[in-house]
Amino acid sequence: MKTQPTLKDIREAHKRITPFIHRTPVLTCRAIDDMLGATLFFKCENLQKVGAFKIRGACNAVYSLDDAESENGVAAHSSGNHGAALALAAQWRGIKAYVVMPENSSAVKLKAVAGYGAEIILCKPTPKDREEDLKRVIQSTGAALIHPYNDYRVICGQGTAALELCEDIPGLDIVMTPVGGGGLLSGTAIAVKGLSPQTRVMAGEPERADDACQSLKAGRIIPVKDPDTIADGLRTSLGDLTFSIIEGHVKDIITVSEEGIIAAMRLIWERMKIVVEPSASVPLGAIMGRPKDFTGKRIGIILSGGNVDLDTLPWIGQESGHGS
Amino acid sequence: MKTQPTLKDIREAHKRITPFIHRTPVLTCRAIDDMLGATLFFKCENLQKVGAFKIRGACNAVYSLDDAESENGVAAHSSGNHGAALALAAQWRGIKAYVVMPENSSAVKLKAVAGYGAEIILCKPTPKDREEDLKRVIQSTGAALIHPYNDYRVICGQGTAALELCEDIPGLDIVMTPVGGGGLLSGTAIAVKGLSPQTRVMAGEPERADDACQSLKAGRIIPVKDPDTIADGLRTSLGDLTFSIIEGHVKDIITVSEEGIIAAMRLIWERMKIVVEPSASVPLGAIMGRPKDFTGKRIGIILSGGNVDLDTLPWIGQESGHGS
Repeated sequence: MKTQPTLKDIREAHKRITPFIHRTPVLTCRAIDDMLGATLFFKCENLQKVGAFKIRGACNAVYSLDDAESENGVAAHSSGNHGAALALAAQWRGIKAYVVMPENSSAVKLKAVAGYGAEIILCKPTPKDREEDLKRVIQSTGAALIHPYNDYRVICGQGTAALELCEDIPGLDIVMTPVGGGGLLSGTAIAVKGLSPQTRVMAGEPERADDACQSLKAGRIIPVKDPDTIADGLRTSLGDLTFSIIEGHVKDIITVSEEGIIAAMRLIWERMKIVVEPSASVPLGAIMGRPKDFTGKRIGIILSGGNVDLDTLPWIGQESGHGS
Repeated sequence: MKTQPTLKDIREAHKRITPFIHRTPVLTCRAIDDMLGATLFFKCENLQKVGAFKIRGACNAVYSLDDAESENGVAAHSSGNHGAALALAAQWRGIKAYVVMPENSSAVKLKAVAGYGAEIILCKPTPKDREEDLKRVIQSTGAALIHPYNDYRVICGQGTAALELCEDIPGLDIVMTPVGGGGLLSGTAIAVKGLSPQTRVMAGEPERADDACQSLKAGRIIPVKDPDTIADGLRTSLGDLTFSIIEGHVKDIITVSEEGIIAAMRLIWERMKIVVEPSASVPLGAIMGRPKDFTGKRIGIILSGGNVDLDTLPWIGQESGHGS
């Protein structure tokens, strides 16, 4: 795929991955709606296989490879969810997976990736180290690179969550996702704009990793320098493919403080009784930070994942160093 | 209602409360099934209004009152979920609710009951103190007593969760609930035995509050003395009405250690990505303690509620004093 994908590509991805993934439920919560004066529809990708939307992109990419392309396995770097997803998709297809993970990855994510049979290569937690270690792995194994987000196959797979959301809940005013590397946001933008051009696509982004917001303003990619946010899935920077799609479709990226992310996460746990990770809570945090901008709107939110380390919840104890 | 209720009474209760409650989803989890070698169907009453099945019983009782019976409001004692449920049902009907709660109730439960507009009366955390304080409240207000479990209207309402479960998932070998006062278990027994006589009804009970297990063995009610369990919804003892129904229909009550309850709770959070309270985790804990007894079975489990104080999770820190 050389040119920007369209709704048609996302529909094809959806057909390709449907045998493998869950069609996740869309939940609502009266208490949160009442608090915000809006109507929120939560697409629960925390209930997805591997606990995150990432399986959609990984599965589409792995099953897009022909036999020759896949024979030496697949490789990626990942802060966790993409690694688990790629490992599982490779296991389904019966090929090897190599996953380069930062050494500060959460215990639960390391365990999940290993549990799906992938080979884990630990690296220093900087974008540069990830990239270099990944190159070395690919050179020595011949594995096919499946980038976590800057890959049209991955973007199209990740856009299928929004496709399902828009099919299940027609007439949304806004669809919101978190943004880290931009795969979910760009896939969502293509799906939503193709299906329902009048629906706005927005994103929430951690203040402490606000490269997407900065990049949109500047009109060029400004990589994040010190992404010290609790939202561990959003510490990455946009790629050229995701930036280009996002620039074309998305105007509003709202940044959220660490306190705002934690408050939204806690609200979802407490009122919706579901487990979501900090990254998944960023869009709700964005709305909670400026509720008047959303009054009366019908808003779809993609809850991106639920993989948290239950030993270190951000509102208990002092271990995390995040929040106030 | 003077004689033991039947399936017909539970169907009537279901009709009465259906406009007010959620038909909660039944979730499955491949990882837990693989671990146990059985097929588990989780009826998610943690996603019910007020976060627990208790709204079913309270709502049925409140809407079973005629206008004269309800004019001075309703009153109950409750460790939390029944209080919240009664408060909300009373709010729906536009009458007052008085709730006697032990002073060691969790913060989140106190907040929920107050949030639905009930008047809270704090008491010492013993069965005797609850009863005496409740009597005083009823004498001074003229409110109608709605007992949390020893009341046929409440039992029938609580049995509607199992009614829905058996309708949605036919052919279950076993249906399991937790047991505290026995309202959920006795209502479940009537529903399941009426719909599907060959299905076994079982319960999980905390070792540290094993009065139902002891009472079944002895053939008479043996109240719990020092119910020091993390499963705060199960610290109560059977009543005469619930005991009599349970004695007729239930043979197996499996006790679970504090460690077993916590392990089951954590497994549900980690793998199913949903928030359940300790009490809700007791049936899974019972199965995890003796998996061979359940190999190959299709088992329905009622996840009774999701109201936990997120500041004091049992596997973090030393505050709880429970477990090892």
